[in-house]
Amino acid sequence: MSLDAVLSRIDADLGAATDRLLTFLRIPSISTDPAYKGQVSEAADWLVAELGQIGVDATAHKTPGHPMVVGHGGEGGRSLLFYGHYDVQPVDPLELWDRDPFDPAIEDTPKGKVIRGRGASDDKGQLMTFVEACRAWKAVHGTLPARLTFLFEGEEESGSPSLVPFLEQNRDLLAADLGLICDTALYGRDTPAITTMLRGLLGEEVTVTGPSRDLHSGSYGGPAMNPIRVLAKVLAGLHDLQGRVTVPGFYDDVEEVSEQVSQQWDALGFDAGSFLGEVGLSSPAGEADRSALEQIWARPTCEINGIKGGYAGAGFKTVLPSQASAKISFRLVAAQDPLKIRESFRQMVRDAMPPDCTVEFHGHGAAPASRMDISDPAFEAARKALSGEWPKDAAYVGAGGSIPVAGHLQQILGIDSMLIGFGKGDDQIHSPNEKYDLESFHRGMRSWARILDAIS
Amino acid sequence: MSLDAVLSRIDADLGAATDRLLTFLRIPSISTDPAYKGQVSEAADWLVAELGQIGVDATAHKTPGHPMVVGHGGEGGRSLLFYGHYDVQPVDPLELWDRDPFDPAIEDTPKGKVIRGRGASDDKGQLMTFVEACRAWKAVHGTLPARLTFLFEGEEESGSPSLVPFLEQNRDLLAADLGLICDTALYGRDTPAITTMLRGLLGEEVTVTGPSRDLHSGSYGGPAMNPIRVLAKVLAGLHDLQGRVTVPGFYDDVEEVSEQVSQQWDALGFDAGSFLGEVGLSSPAGEADRSALEQIWARPTCEINGIKGGYAGAGFKTVLPSQASAKISFRLVAAQDPLKIRESFRQMVRDAMPPDCTVEFHGHGAAPASRMDISDPAFEAARKALSGEWPKDAAYVGAGGSIPVAGHLQQILGIDSMLIGFGKGDDQIHSPNEKYDLESFHRGMRSWARILDAIS
Repeated sequence: MSLDAVLSRIDADLGAATDRLLTFLRIPSISTDPAYKGQVSEAADWLVAELGQIGVDATAHKTPGHPMVVGHGGEGGRSLLFYGHYDVQPVDPLELWDRDPFDPAIEDTPKGKVIRGRGASDDKGQLMTFVEACRAWKAVHGTLPARLTFLFEGEEESGSPSLVPFLEQNRDLLAADLGLICDTALYGRDTPAITTMLRGLLGEEVTVTGPSRDLHSGSYGGPAMNPIRVLAKVLAGLHDLQGRVTVPGFYDDVEEVSEQVSQQWDALGFDAGSFLGEVGLSSPAGEADRSALEQIWARPTCEINGIKGGYAGAGFKTVLPSQASAKISFRLVAAQDPLKIRESFRQMVRDAMPPDCTVEFHGHGAAPASRMDISDPAFEAARKALSGEWPKDAAYVGAGGSIPVAGHLQQILGIDSMLIGFGKGDDQIHSPNEKYDLESFHRGMRSWARILDAIS
Repeated sequence: MSLDAVLSRIDADLGAATDRLLTFLRIPSISTDPAYKGQVSEAADWLVAELGQIGVDATAHKTPGHPMVVGHGGEGGRSLLFYGHYDVQPVDPLELWDRDPFDPAIEDTPKGKVIRGRGASDDKGQLMTFVEACRAWKAVHGTLPARLTFLFEGEEESGSPSLVPFLEQNRDLLAADLGLICDTALYGRDTPAITTMLRGLLGEEVTVTGPSRDLHSGSYGGPAMNPIRVLAKVLAGLHDLQGRVTVPGFYDDVEEVSEQVSQQWDALGFDAGSFLGEVGLSSPAGEADRSALEQIWARPTCEINGIKGGYAGAGFKTVLPSQASAKISFRLVAAQDPLKIRESFRQMVRDAMPPDCTVEFHGHGAAPASRMDISDPAFEAARKALSGEWPKDAAYVGAGGSIPVAGHLQQILGIDSMLIGFGKGDDQIHSPNEKYDLESFHRGMRSWARILDAIS
């Protein structure tokens, strides 16, 4: 059977594939720091060359920022767009690393071998699972498994400023039937996952102004309106006693998850106690009638991410401040419309202003939730393929955070994506001593081979 | 009549008195800056010499900080303790001064002649109104008007660290029947005032802790308790819809002002609209059933002086913070017990903590309100004497802020004080271009002569 041959080839080539990844990891492609601009380009060129080796015609496209690598290869079958990013996070604080972050190595640990270095898990190692799966396929079959488009971004860790314009300007170049994104984690060490629901995000900054200047609370305390007090009242009113968000119409477009997905989630045996216990908490603080897992994956929230006003330094000042402000974000689900919710929120806050207070708003992004259509048979095929590789069956899961590229592919290219990744919870991405389990790398390659075999 | 002779003497000596004040103002006695330690001592010695000239036996007492000048003079009559301070505020930003702050001069302005220089109003000029009144009295009568104790502090602008210990260790030296404090302002340009009610102050810092570390709001938003949300709820609950403070028992020891005082306040014609209008406000925000003047002078308040939590810098971070904190102060009146209110407040906040949140408190001072017993006939005598000097009658007024020395004299020496001063609202104390109206200086001296004549 041809899949078996590909899997065997992956197994046989593991050492060489690991060496290639180590070479890739040695390029310090830190996108957010202009000092590394040359190295980011070097990583893009390295990928172009690697893709060339497996018969993919690739180009590092210029953007106002870092290059966007796009390659095409393969014929027939489904048209698949694979996305990964080759830039990495900065490494500071450097003194907390046990080794040079850009001198990666295989290390033995009590949990098995790991590839240690910046970008090992996020996202160079993950990206290479797909490239290596294609290389093995090509070695066995002489062709790629499908019509493949590779899209490798170099700005994911610095806010992806060029991604949307590039997608908009290259719709034809990037046209495909389905996206594959490898930038997520396993559900559990033994349980792979396909992320099919990603919450959206609406960010708002609210500034309440009372007096025209800071006042002395002895001289004015009492008659003068205090904007911190007004802001506190607004913030305190954002949730009711059941933990529901009180913004009018907030739940209008929220939908329940399907019975199928709900049963899978139950089967995951999510342990809310240990999830919360790890961060010093014990009871879910969201909507009272929802499980912790639902609260993260399937329910919208409102969070206060920051607040400031008056004097908050050492000691005490009896100031009555002119202004107070807060940063508030809403995680959105299903069909919730960020702009509609923004307007409803703003009106609610305006209505709460007493005489002598004004309010200003500053929007910080508004992205709807992404939901993938798992009735496309490719999803169930991929889930079964994944389940074949790992000790436990794969699950469709949600993600509390946002992975913007998935939404962009939906909105600009009109395609759903499968978000499949092999990171583990202890990979320390964005932190010192980042690693990627050799198991993740190895089984990751094998997983893609199985998935490509199943859906192409 | 002998008072007339003293007043005439003051008028005749105005030029010389002004020259003496200018000499005093040339000494840069900035108490908070160790670089000026010698000059602060020089100012103390200058006062000792001045007092010697009018037959007052004075000494600059050493303290751990700057000297405390104490002098005694006069015989018979009431025993009066006069307090003023000879240290001054720093002068920065120096570039905003129109002249060297320590090269004072008489300047003509559209509103009349002013003495310009650091300390002119706060408090060297005010202090000298009393010394010069005594000098004139001595010149006319050959004696001082009463048994006088002079207490001149050199640390008022740097938190008075030595004052309480000095008072406690020198009760006999400072024993008197009544205090006179010259460190306040006129009620209006033409309306003198005796401050008889000073609000107390209780400062509290509240820190709410939720998760054991900052969390990503994508991964934890929903199930994880957000301490900013909890803190906002606490703060929003501190006032009811009528603007009353909700701390249990808060109003237990609050008293209404007397009919006599209330009528005087009405007569002042306080213009809440212009008071608030100057700082961009229009309607009193305190207790709904109280006038703005009552809210400042006679009613307790609760203010939020500062708040912080999460990310409040530029841009946006979807952080769910581990901690949030606020600084809260209570202005107290009448017999309100700061420690009782502190405990009641803390219990109220503790009771508001949800599961998974803890709260810590840090106290920042607890001083009760000061009220002077105006049934002592000396108060009414002084008020009439003051009224004789100025275009409008003198009023008993309150002060929204605190003047700690008045409380210390009550608590340690057991005496009430008359707080009488001649500063004006535009004196720019603590700011560049501080000035004292020559009228304030001149009428101030004459006012003290009248008061001493009336009460001694």
